Amino acid sequence: MANYKLVLSYDGTDFCGWQRQLEKRTVQSVLEETLAKIAGKKVEVIGSGRTDAGVHAQGQVANFKADLRLKDKELFQALNALLPDDVKALSLRRAAPDFHARKTAKSKIYQYRIYNSRLVSPFLLRYVLCWPAALYIQKMGEAASLFEREGDFTAFSSNRLLHPVRKVFRSEIKKKGQEIIYTIEANGFLRHMVRTIVGTLLEVGRGKMEPYEIEDIFREKKRSLAGPTAPAKGLCLVKVIY
Amino acid sequence: MANYKLVLSYDGTDFCGWQRQLEKRTVQSVLEETLAKIAGKKVEVIGSGRTDAGVHAQGQVANFKADLRLKDKELFQALNALLPDDVKALSLRRAAPDFHARKTAKSKIYQYRIYNSRLVSPFLLRYVLCWPAALYIQKMGEAASLFEREGDFTAFSSNRLLHPVRKVFRSEIKKKGQEIIYTIEANGFLRHMVRTIVGTLLEVGRGKMEPYEIEDIFREKKRSLAGPTAPAKGLCLVKVIY
Repeated sequence: MANYKLVLSYDGTDFCGWQRQLEKRTVQSVLEETLAKIAGKKVEVIGSGRTDAGVHAQGQVANFKADLRLKDKELFQALNALLPDDVKALSLRRAAPDFHARKTAKSKIYQYRIYNSRLVSPFLLRYVLCWPAALYIQKMGEAASLFEREGDFTAFSSNRLLHPVRKVFRSEIKKKGQEIIYTIEANGFLRHMVRTIVGTLLEVGRGKMEPYEIEDIFREKKRSLAGPTAPAKGLCLVKVIY
Repeated sequence: MANYKLVLSYDGTDFCGWQRQLEKRTVQSVLEETLAKIAGKKVEVIGSGRTDAGVHAQGQVANFKADLRLKDKELFQALNALLPDDVKALSLRRAAPDFHARKTAKSKIYQYRIYNSRLVSPFLLRYVLCWPAALYIQKMGEAASLFEREGDFTAFSSNRLLHPVRKVFRSEIKKKGQEIIYTIEANGFLRHMVRTIVGTLLEVGRGKMEPYEIEDIFREKKRSLAGPTAPAKGLCLVKVIY
């Protein structure tokens, strides 16, 4: 059996997230159903991680094992021809037999887009959080850098896990025109972690919280001290690094 | 009664075009229904021109007359708050009483996006024509420049009109990464004119037609000699000039 590595891009708007769920349109289900049509039997697709309903991906990675007569290029073309418009494979290649999209991943990069204006083009609305009010962007940047650490991210997650330590390599804010783009790279993410961090950065941006308070939240490990979970649509899984 | 000038942006994917039609979701209907809610009575919206089903707009212009208590800024905010996500007002201001979005327009600029690759991101698919095969882009550029003229565009329209003369000020092809962008500015457009010109340029790009044949098509005035009508989704009304 060959082990295929797929790089995928999807517009998360009309998906109930990555993970297979009964009777729901999810990215994993759509991929598995499409691959089953090609392979003539059940194919299990393993993603680098789940993305929530409404979250987008520019470079999600998945792998699956299958024994096919198709050449790789043919498989790639057939797959993209059969996939719906809102999810496409960017590349397909054979990986080592032990390649596992989730377990082998070293880090992942997410971006969150905040459009800081009352006016958002209909072409962007599916991909950004629209924030009409003024924001202290420099303070948000200071606060963002405090997430670069190896630490217990329980306060910034919707779950309480036995092993909540994650290592964040990069956490930064950039302004590009009217957009504020938050980029985070970590060796792993807890549930709703990026969206909770963004919600917290927005509290700082609004002046409701000071950057130094981030430290207290890490120490207390209480979800209630962090900001609200920012909406899914601004979030995008940019890249998975192996 | 004040005469309001609106600049509008819409994602045409889920609209049956601009013009009001019974039981169909059109941009004009959605605008008129929304303004009627605000005004408490019927409001007629006049567009600079119709756009076909699936055609997008970055800068469509419309005007409407109404007698409202709201300040302009309040009207603008209420309108955008009530409009669906796929159509938004970019600006609203009072115009001269005789301003008429269609009759006063001097010229309009349209763009058509061709994505010349087998691979198109799901984020672009609604806005570009995907063209996987190779294209003679330089020849397309030569052919495009031949449309810069004042002439009878009957061969490049789905209608036969009594007055089919239009003046094209600009008609050019630009390459930007994997995208081929066609821009045309004219004092008016016949039905399906931009899409038929693009369909003809693609015939040139494929090597099925030579640029010099454009001249013959203008002379013969036969729709059957021009290329097919390119799909709506690649087309966008960029700007209306007054």
